[in-house]
Amino acid sequence: MPFSFELQHTSGVARVGRIQTDHGAITTPVFMPVGTQAAVKAVTPDMLKDAGVQIILGNTYHLVLRPGSETVERAGGLHAFMGWDRPILTDSGGFQVLSLSKLRKISDQGITFRSHVDGSVHFFSPESVIRDQALLGADIIMSFDYCTDYPCDRAEAERAVALTTKWAREGRDVYGARFEMGGYERVIFGIIQGSTYPDLRERSVNEIHELDFPGYAIGALAVGEDRETTWEITRQVTDGLPSDRLRYLMGMGTPADLVEGVAHGVDMFDCVMPTRNARNGTVFTRNGKMNMRNAVYANDYRPLDEECECATCRNFTRAYVRHLFQAGEMLGPTLATQHSLYYYCHLMGEINEAIRKDRFETWRGQFLECYTSDASGNARSA
Amino acid sequence: MPFSFELQHTSGVARVGRIQTDHGAITTPVFMPVGTQAAVKAVTPDMLKDAGVQIILGNTYHLVLRPGSETVERAGGLHAFMGWDRPILTDSGGFQVLSLSKLRKISDQGITFRSHVDGSVHFFSPESVIRDQALLGADIIMSFDYCTDYPCDRAEAERAVALTTKWAREGRDVYGARFEMGGYERVIFGIIQGSTYPDLRERSVNEIHELDFPGYAIGALAVGEDRETTWEITRQVTDGLPSDRLRYLMGMGTPADLVEGVAHGVDMFDCVMPTRNARNGTVFTRNGKMNMRNAVYANDYRPLDEECECATCRNFTRAYVRHLFQAGEMLGPTLATQHSLYYYCHLMGEINEAIRKDRFETWRGQFLECYTSDASGNARSA
Repeated sequence: MPFSFELQHTSGVARVGRIQTDHGAITTPVFMPVGTQAAVKAVTPDMLKDAGVQIILGNTYHLVLRPGSETVERAGGLHAFMGWDRPILTDSGGFQVLSLSKLRKISDQGITFRSHVDGSVHFFSPESVIRDQALLGADIIMSFDYCTDYPCDRAEAERAVALTTKWAREGRDVYGARFEMGGYERVIFGIIQGSTYPDLRERSVNEIHELDFPGYAIGALAVGEDRETTWEITRQVTDGLPSDRLRYLMGMGTPADLVEGVAHGVDMFDCVMPTRNARNGTVFTRNGKMNMRNAVYANDYRPLDEECECATCRNFTRAYVRHLFQAGEMLGPTLATQHSLYYYCHLMGEINEAIRKDRFETWRGQFLECYTSDASGNARSA
Repeated sequence: MPFSFELQHTSGVARVGRIQTDHGAITTPVFMPVGTQAAVKAVTPDMLKDAGVQIILGNTYHLVLRPGSETVERAGGLHAFMGWDRPILTDSGGFQVLSLSKLRKISDQGITFRSHVDGSVHFFSPESVIRDQALLGADIIMSFDYCTDYPCDRAEAERAVALTTKWAREGRDVYGARFEMGGYERVIFGIIQGSTYPDLRERSVNEIHELDFPGYAIGALAVGEDRETTWEITRQVTDGLPSDRLRYLMGMGTPADLVEGVAHGVDMFDCVMPTRNARNGTVFTRNGKMNMRNAVYANDYRPLDEECECATCRNFTRAYVRHLFQAGEMLGPTLATQHSLYYYCHLMGEINEAIRKDRFETWRGQFLECYTSDASGNARSA
């Protein structure tokens, strides 16, 4: 079944829709857990399904370095390799090359870098990262981009826009915006850069949109800028894109960020926040964050979230999860991750329902009232 | 349903039988994975069930120190606390007090020690360890014992026999050999000491057996002695015990150890070996041990064991599991543990079938021929 996106309902600029891929359908808005190294840390594929996860993200940079895209391809792609039969999106590697690798040399042709794992030298080009993602088996492939940090001077932001457009065009020229490989369809998304400069964002939207991708990602947000700026830029970009294409805000965020992202026209999100925080003992609930190491839970025999139906909350107590973290048991991160991913997915389901019932603004107000003690999050998949 | 053991078939001194407890039945011979701190490391209760685990062991020493037997009791006991509804055996704490704690003071009344976790001072008496195990919710409770190391001089071994008998009697005098608490029946097992001295083992067997417990454990083996001695002592003890009572060899062992243990009349085993080795990347298969970090598996897309039906072997490859260990992903230990526990349980099932079909000796010869590269194991639950 060819890749498609059907916009089903809107409430203001908030949208619900349905993505069809050869690995199944996805209801939007959707949150994608990060499976950096061909695994969502601390949980099994079955647990991801139980949590309601529809699609996961893999990190091209990490997977190319280890175990290598050819090893994954020989295994039958990421779906077979990691035992995940639902859709997979891989990122472009651009963010990690610029944040993790050493001795980078950036040219118009691509980026030469040293692996943070073993020091080996690699070269990513607009064509090579799409080939790598195709070998990895991604359903949704990201164009190579030049991701800026924050703050970012104007010249650097201009260069990012220019290189990202050039690279998106070059990748598209080789593969097209959609192609079949390994018996199923792959689609390529374009990425919008431009840092916090509205005119550069506008230029990037126009240039990338002209390349006619099935979806567009907003890059270089959630990298340190204040949230007011995040949402201004997000809204500017989503307003500039056609309503029949997907909008993906990369690297966000907290539960409140997801709600605000949807309120500003976003369909897709990814972030390491629920999984990384869970491994440190912090879980997300409808009332905000809970640090499960806290002594207050030592004899608290309630579930993590009393209204939650996840496998952790159905079977275990705060006292038990606290004990696991205190005792250094790996099961602590596993149970916490299972809960927080369920919460994130369930939250997206609530958002979806509120939009369909034309009461998203009311729901959003109630959510923000209930959801307190949240930290502003700039955690980006790395 | 009251606790019972039915001896169903023998083949030489090898036996199969059935234990009934209020938390369900157990087929023997049985291997009990170790859940030291109210969790079998790296796996969920559902995974344990999928692996065929019938009963798990909890460590009283660890659980009394953290989170405390009262905390577990308020949670509804270990079954409710850790989400495990099948039988649980807890050890006496004697082994860990003598191997892990600091500043021990041993008297006829019990052992005073400092916690290895926080330095707090505790006292274990013959009565207190049974009370603790009862609060923890164990179906099978071990009498307090004085466990000797190896080598052990005769005077120390004599003292161990004398104290262990005294303590077994004192615990039994308070609780009886079986009692009901929390709505289900608990039974107490006695422990045989005597190190490697046949006459002391004989004395211990006679004294402990006179106390008439539903089951008897063999202590202070697998602590460094050679295997010839292990099996001589094991056989001497099982020969000295009535056939209608359970025999439990504590802290053993490798797959080959389990086969030999059964061949010497043992019904029950526990060991950290399958779980601890799995976390280090070593799994057990019918052909022996495999170190999953080995580069030879980098592009090996077969299951860990091609004949294995475990959740890991059904869904994942050697290449993937190796990748997880190389990348430091927690899922590596989880998948490896899942496999090795399935293998251990499946092995016990094969032994059971061979005994029932009166071909255990033939099966044992075939097993030992196939099972190579095994390390002699003295890992004891700690």
